[in-house]
Amino acid sequence: MELLKPSLANSSPFTPLAFLDRAATVYGDCPSVIYNRTTYTWSETHRRCLQLASSLVSFGIHPGHVVSVVAPNIPAMYELHFAVPFAGAILNNINTRLDARTISVILRHAESKLVFVDCASRALVLEALSLFPPNSHSQRPVLILIADDTVEPSLSSFTADFRDTYEELVGKGDPGFQWIRPNAEWDPIVLNYTSGTTSSPKGVVQCHRGLFTVTVNSLIEWAVPKQPIYLWTLPMFHANGWALSWAMAAVGATNICVRQFDGEILYGLIERHGVTHLCGAPVVLNMLANSPNRKQLRNPVQILTGGAPPPAAILLQTESLGFVVTHVYGLTETGGIVVLCAWKPHWNRLEAVERARLKARQGVRAIGMAEVDVVDPESGVSVKRDGSTMGELVLRGGCLMLGYLKDPDATSKCFKHGWFYTGDVAVMHPDGYIEIKDRSKDVIISGGENVSSVEVESVLYSHPAINEAAVVARPDQYWGETPCAFVSLKSGWEKKPTEKEVIEYCRAKMAHYMVPKTVVFKEELPKTSTGKIQKFVLRNMAKNMGLTQHKSRL
Amino acid sequence: MELLKPSLANSSPFTPLAFLDRAATVYGDCPSVIYNRTTYTWSETHRRCLQLASSLVSFGIHPGHVVSVVAPNIPAMYELHFAVPFAGAILNNINTRLDARTISVILRHAESKLVFVDCASRALVLEALSLFPPNSHSQRPVLILIADDTVEPSLSSFTADFRDTYEELVGKGDPGFQWIRPNAEWDPIVLNYTSGTTSSPKGVVQCHRGLFTVTVNSLIEWAVPKQPIYLWTLPMFHANGWALSWAMAAVGATNICVRQFDGEILYGLIERHGVTHLCGAPVVLNMLANSPNRKQLRNPVQILTGGAPPPAAILLQTESLGFVVTHVYGLTETGGIVVLCAWKPHWNRLEAVERARLKARQGVRAIGMAEVDVVDPESGVSVKRDGSTMGELVLRGGCLMLGYLKDPDATSKCFKHGWFYTGDVAVMHPDGYIEIKDRSKDVIISGGENVSSVEVESVLYSHPAINEAAVVARPDQYWGETPCAFVSLKSGWEKKPTEKEVIEYCRAKMAHYMVPKTVVFKEELPKTSTGKIQKFVLRNMAKNMGLTQHKSRL
Repeated sequence: MELLKPSLANSSPFTPLAFLDRAATVYGDCPSVIYNRTTYTWSETHRRCLQLASSLVSFGIHPGHVVSVVAPNIPAMYELHFAVPFAGAILNNINTRLDARTISVILRHAESKLVFVDCASRALVLEALSLFPPNSHSQRPVLILIADDTVEPSLSSFTADFRDTYEELVGKGDPGFQWIRPNAEWDPIVLNYTSGTTSSPKGVVQCHRGLFTVTVNSLIEWAVPKQPIYLWTLPMFHANGWALSWAMAAVGATNICVRQFDGEILYGLIERHGVTHLCGAPVVLNMLANSPNRKQLRNPVQILTGGAPPPAAILLQTESLGFVVTHVYGLTETGGIVVLCAWKPHWNRLEAVERARLKARQGVRAIGMAEVDVVDPESGVSVKRDGSTMGELVLRGGCLMLGYLKDPDATSKCFKHGWFYTGDVAVMHPDGYIEIKDRSKDVIISGGENVSSVEVESVLYSHPAINEAAVVARPDQYWGETPCAFVSLKSGWEKKPTEKEVIEYCRAKMAHYMVPKTVVFKEELPKTSTGKIQKFVLRNMAKNMGLTQHKSRL
Repeated sequence: MELLKPSLANSSPFTPLAFLDRAATVYGDCPSVIYNRTTYTWSETHRRCLQLASSLVSFGIHPGHVVSVVAPNIPAMYELHFAVPFAGAILNNINTRLDARTISVILRHAESKLVFVDCASRALVLEALSLFPPNSHSQRPVLILIADDTVEPSLSSFTADFRDTYEELVGKGDPGFQWIRPNAEWDPIVLNYTSGTTSSPKGVVQCHRGLFTVTVNSLIEWAVPKQPIYLWTLPMFHANGWALSWAMAAVGATNICVRQFDGEILYGLIERHGVTHLCGAPVVLNMLANSPNRKQLRNPVQILTGGAPPPAAILLQTESLGFVVTHVYGLTETGGIVVLCAWKPHWNRLEAVERARLKARQGVRAIGMAEVDVVDPESGVSVKRDGSTMGELVLRGGCLMLGYLKDPDATSKCFKHGWFYTGDVAVMHPDGYIEIKDRSKDVIISGGENVSSVEVESVLYSHPAINEAAVVARPDQYWGETPCAFVSLKSGWEKKPTEKEVIEYCRAKMAHYMVPKTVVFKEELPKTSTGKIQKFVLRNMAKNMGLTQHKSRL
């Protein structure tokens, strides 16, 4: 037995990239991507990705280089999930809602060689580049413009800041290009930045094996049939749309792209295309449940929701319209879905409120994950399965990131005792289902976006009048949570800033979704005997202030 | 980037064993296995497997030991797919239709420590042990009896030849046993013997990673929903039922076990349990299509068929009854399904005969396979995609075996240039679908069982009157193919044996399904100039003899 070792034939690396070749063979004539009046077939998407990859290689992109994208859910964004790694490069999606400063930090940290820029993010990215230090010309990435005549019909195909347009690169490429397979399944394939506990975003590096595994999780756990009609409400810049960008090629889906949306647009797309599947934070459920255009669905639509537990009222409203909601859990560090509230058939016989309570739990590990547990963070020992003893949610399995780029300290802090420590505080119920009770990492989740309280606090501390600052989550009817700042002012300061002034100060320095929606002035912030700010006291205060209502377009 | 290496947390081995823990959590109260009047739930199956594994360990079974099973599709057979590897041991299923001599050869080659024996195979296995060489007492495996009161109600629970009964081992075990996880995903988990080109069966060794991958193939490609009702018509001793033994735990299926069956039994089980899925060689389709009990299905039943292309008439008959047939391809060496005729929606608009022709093709690689090709076996270069140039079907990907046990020559012969050479002669159609045209390995496939012509020939050559022998496939209406022997007799021999005598001679020395159904006496067999028997000439002769009809119970 010992003589039998893996060979070249059976140890070829797992990768989600090969799904596209297969889709071109099996679903060649079927629609792959639909966006406004544009429809591609799977053989067209395959050819376009090969052409684009070949142009990237001609351009000087080598295996291991980072290629960034700042774009919403448009066809180019979908294609880049294959084209960039087809060239051996590492795909780095950047949230279009970030501010120029943060984008500039990311581009420099990632050492990005090339950035694909959606026309609507042109000014943002140009501003980000202007924030590069002087004399850093050699480090500046080349820019490629993704034009879109539904946004800017009169846009000249070329401006001085851009080397080429996306379609020009596609057009120049070789459709017979042989894509560059990874040497090992542990080779990096994507780099996704996440808000962390520090003031700078952290770069999560995922490998081919990890993303192959997470696509398997989604397809099997969601029991995705062949050729679903998938509506892209979940941004692909959020952990590659939970890796569904690749999974949808595996099943020959029709990908319905949409730049931005409200309830009216969503119901229109669902009806026009016969949408069967979509994903999104609870804020998307909210939009569907409360839209004036809401209507009873003719056929059920499957929804995966995550980022925060779906509130009972929203869940019941969407389900009564014909949406079938599955609550899932994942982090940028897990590449996608790793835990889900697997539904037991007999739960369907329970009262609606009880069903919603059960569905708010994060649940059990997905099929590709080895183990999931809730442990005492000090001792590493599993907590009691009693639904009340708190511990930290820990994960083990093939979907986990390789680590944080250029941050060995942060990497080693979360990989301990053979587990990944999520920073989420959870309980283990007697039936083996996990429920998250709190986040130890000081992250506020607002409309599916992670907001680092430390990152907001560091901006507040830069205000000349502010002495101390602490940011916590305040419940919000629409966004789930919004950032709420508690500040004390410097004693010698004469002209006290108003709430509005502090908010405007923040808006100038960070992404809008991160800006505190509430600022509370205090003589002094509550502290422990050792001088540490007691955030749990502030969280309770924020909770007792009641719901905010800050609805605006996603 | 280079600094980011796999860690303990993200490199935990892939294994299909963990599916059972998860099924116990999610589907604990739901039926797992049904057999006659016995029904287990997933928590019971989980507990029973842990108990049995703990008994195996107490018994002295260590990681790396081989544990054999000679049993049909009964609950014990299902449980052993988890219980044996839970103890760290390697599961070796043995075809109950083999003869005692072959079973004896397998047990000695595998160095099996322990054999679970179904009561109906008791005499067979005792005879196999009697064929062990004298003074080999230390090598003899211990026997455990799987009693079954539906077969032998009066069976005493213990006979002198058996150390224990199956239920006694389950009863003695510890339900809190921590199963033994593999150290590496390349650790062996099963050993399956297959008829090969030599006169002895070859032992195919599969690892945890390989079987995890092949379960993923089946679940995604077959789009298996949660909690299917799976009818076990495919023997688990055939490559572990194409690895569906584990896959069914991943989705919390109800496994309907059945010891032996005909059309009446099948339709009865489909109706009683609401069967949704089953698998089998075309002979099972034949049984369904031609049973006097056949009836229109109330709900569609999904069938995977493989081993040979489904004949058009049978395909159309079963489909008209409401069965949905998917044609798949795999070998014992691939652990299960690796290629399948992925169905294109627009094919449904074609004429029935054209649909059947397309469905007879083996198709495209399954999602977990890296690459599949048809190449010139000498040069290794891909053949033209013209549907007519013949080449050898080659495979690359995670489902392939580690190799043949104690047979480095056979292993290195099929692993070449980074590919696994299947020995199957195929063409590549212009649309990228593969179709097998012939088998270069001299294997006859009769009712889903592989018959090695070389193995049959070696028995024929042992007959005192036979000078030369060659065995080829003859088309059979029911079994697809049956072995047909061409023999020439020794010149000095006076009393010529009859066809019946040669057949009886074979029946005494091999499994019944291997015995030639036709014996043709020739003055001389056709040969090449170098004296090699021209099998293709004999194959044509056998074909022109017309269909045999040897229907009997499977």
